Amino acid sequence: MKEKELIQIIKSSLNSRYIGDDCAYLSDLGIVITQDSLVEDVHFKLSYTKAYEVGWKSIAVNISDICASGAEPAYLTVALSLPEYINTDFVKEFYKGAKDAAGNAKIVGGDITGSDKLYVSVCAVGKTSGRRISSRSNAKPEYKIVVSNEHGNSAKGLKLLLEGKNERNKFTKAHLTPTVQEEFSRQIAQNINTDYAMADTSDGLADALMQIAASSGLKLCIETSKIPHDPSVDLETVLYGGEDYGLVAAVPQNFETTGTIIGKARKGQAGLEIDRKFYGNIDDKIYNHFKGEK
Amino acid sequence: MKEKELIQIIKSSLNSRYIGDDCAYLSDLGIVITQDSLVEDVHFKLSYTKAYEVGWKSIAVNISDICASGAEPAYLTVALSLPEYINTDFVKEFYKGAKDAAGNAKIVGGDITGSDKLYVSVCAVGKTSGRRISSRSNAKPEYKIVVSNEHGNSAKGLKLLLEGKNERNKFTKAHLTPTVQEEFSRQIAQNINTDYAMADTSDGLADALMQIAASSGLKLCIETSKIPHDPSVDLETVLYGGEDYGLVAAVPQNFETTGTIIGKARKGQAGLEIDRKFYGNIDDKIYNHFKGEK
Repeated sequence: MKEKELIQIIKSSLNSRYIGDDCAYLSDLGIVITQDSLVEDVHFKLSYTKAYEVGWKSIAVNISDICASGAEPAYLTVALSLPEYINTDFVKEFYKGAKDAAGNAKIVGGDITGSDKLYVSVCAVGKTSGRRISSRSNAKPEYKIVVSNEHGNSAKGLKLLLEGKNERNKFTKAHLTPTVQEEFSRQIAQNINTDYAMADTSDGLADALMQIAASSGLKLCIETSKIPHDPSVDLETVLYGGEDYGLVAAVPQNFETTGTIIGKARKGQAGLEIDRKFYGNIDDKIYNHFKGEK
Repeated sequence: MKEKELIQIIKSSLNSRYIGDDCAYLSDLGIVITQDSLVEDVHFKLSYTKAYEVGWKSIAVNISDICASGAEPAYLTVALSLPEYINTDFVKEFYKGAKDAAGNAKIVGGDITGSDKLYVSVCAVGKTSGRRISSRSNAKPEYKIVVSNEHGNSAKGLKLLLEGKNERNKFTKAHLTPTVQEEFSRQIAQNINTDYAMADTSDGLADALMQIAASSGLKLCIETSKIPHDPSVDLETVLYGGEDYGLVAAVPQNFETTGTIIGKARKGQAGLEIDRKFYGNIDDKIYNHFKGEK
């Protein structure tokens, strides 16, 4: 089964208007909510990941979703499933990392069960008070596309870790203890007075851009030379790497943000125009294109 | 590691006032929140559980926590981790069961990942508007102890299933598709005008009673002859069986409830007085007591 096929089953099963953005926006309660899980040997291996880092990242990926909505990260619950080879020191270090990544948000509950692999599922709640909440479908023609954070570092870090290069440096840290773009999100959500789009780049920068393009029915025109990235990281990794937990936003031209302008939205067929070449989806064309260029 | 040792680590790691009740009460947002997980081969086996039943139960156990707080079940997120042997039909049936168990609450999001076992983690949000929220520490001397639902049926059902008796009857259904005590909870939470205690009996009736006794610093005096149970279920199973998802509440004598009065709270050493014998904890004395009686 592909994830997209599954999401289609879930959408049709639930007939819900909430599924699509990084968070569900529960306007009657003034909150957004999200839930993301990390599974041992699927999302991380304990051979190269410390307990502190598992704790940090499991919280950070959820706070990143809250920030993508523009809400203020407020509360978290943590469900841990622990195999027998996990000891109490591991759990203590896990919670140190979780608490540090949570920042001002509070971990208020959760659940512990047994399992045969380490499994962490976190639910995060964000407050919407004083903030305007984003939607991927809210981009408008002529909006500028702004990105926070360097991209590609996390994928390069993962490659190093998988090669046994366990030293903690800029790249491995980007993968293991990503920094969530909370201030970038807050500045936009508290100050903007019109609809805007925002998404986190957990599945890659190109994926986030394509989600906004498809949901808004617009062409997003991007200049790759403007995307912040480390000079040692190749363009394919910058666009597709994933797990950098940057944010990409589409906001009016005259709205001031931090971050870097990498392009703008235009009327036209929904998709991405990358360095003046158009791609209607990222599953084949762009990916193969850059694969071919290597 | 024991669960209690782990909870102690988590409590000291997080220094949080929220951990202890079935839900965390976030009064600034007017919500309660909880998260509970079901893990294949820990909480259920696919040899005797249908996809619909996994979906139902994973939602029901969380709605039960919301009801234990007195809040109104409102929203749910579902994180699914799927091994390769789970097919799309399973996922469709899972969501049918989930949706049916959710009732008026809406499933608004979640996450899908790979895994080597089926793992379901659900987060539930309850609305507190128009409701008085319970706490296990809110029982007072002379409060009556009221219980909803028969107890012991789920444990008897599990025993039947483990013996290969897969027929769906009162007992196996109590285990696989438990009925959450939403109306019992609503009636109390909407009408009571003073503090009260309530807990669900997911870990057994005796455990729920002991949690209230310990948190409130009171002796709960129980008459086992009054506990609603099927005549075929022995007293040990009625008290310790677990997973019946009944509710037990401690409310003022003059407050009318549905359910069955099984005893009352008194000043004295915290613990349970069951049929006039006192037990300060349930880990050894009561359990061994009833073990011994068999």
